[in-house]
Amino acid sequence: MATTTAAQKRAQAKAEYDAFLAQCPSRKLLDRIADKWVTLIVTALGGWRPDTGPGEPGPLRYSELSRLLAGVSQKMLTQTLRNLERDGLVTRTVEPTVPVTVTYELTELGLSLREMMGGIKSWAQNNMDEVLANRDKYDTRVA
Amino acid sequence: MATTTAAQKRAQAKAEYDAFLAQCPSRKLLDRIADKWVTLIVTALGGWRPDTGPGEPGPLRYSELSRLLAGVSQKMLTQTLRNLERDGLVTRTVEPTVPVTVTYELTELGLSLREMMGGIKSWAQNNMDEVLANRDKYDTRVA
Repeated sequence: MATTTAAQKRAQAKAEYDAFLAQCPSRKLLDRIADKWVTLIVTALGGWRPDTGPGEPGPLRYSELSRLLAGVSQKMLTQTLRNLERDGLVTRTVEPTVPVTVTYELTELGLSLREMMGGIKSWAQNNMDEVLANRDKYDTRVA
Repeated sequence: MATTTAAQKRAQAKAEYDAFLAQCPSRKLLDRIADKWVTLIVTALGGWRPDTGPGEPGPLRYSELSRLLAGVSQKMLTQTLRNLERDGLVTRTVEPTVPVTVTYELTELGLSLREMMGGIKSWAQNNMDEVLANRDKYDTRVA
């Protein structure tokens, strides 16, 4: 049969995106998700907490996110959340309280990044000692 | 027994690193690895190629990396590779040919990031269509 199924067409379309290619839109999307603040937002909404590690995903208020991501600027947090909302990774819900309550939650698409982002955050923490030792060795060698 | 085993000590030390904390060194390490160019270098050295997807990890020359990561500036590639070498994720080998041949290869530590980085690159490619559709919806809604 020479006909192409819908699944084949989708597989073909996906194969056409490659982040190795400078002009591919997936290069920009990779740039957006391969980001410290995105990793911390997705893990925070994904249920990770300092000390306790992964838990259940759930909504967080803007103020809670701001507190969890210690040191993030309002501008950076707001801009990153807006990009994530636009890309369809988080939903933003506004409740008409005084002042308004703004809540963020991972979408299904956002949840699909949860494990990978948690893995990257954990990797940085679990390998910190080894990386610090490697840096010492490197700096001694090139000094 | 009140004594602490070496494994417990390591677990305790690891628990002290948390990238949610602004002053934690793992926040900076997360910033370094959650990066588009790091993702593309680790996947390239990890055996990923345009079109064919994942293959066997293996060494690449600087010039091969530069070609694979289309559009990367020499300055960015050199700086990113130096950071990865200093952190112990790649080795750099110089052969005294004319001109010299410089080759990069993932270390064991670098290989431990291979699957996650490949996953993130693939995620961007596999979900590009959905993200583009989400953006259209968002832009129509807020316009």
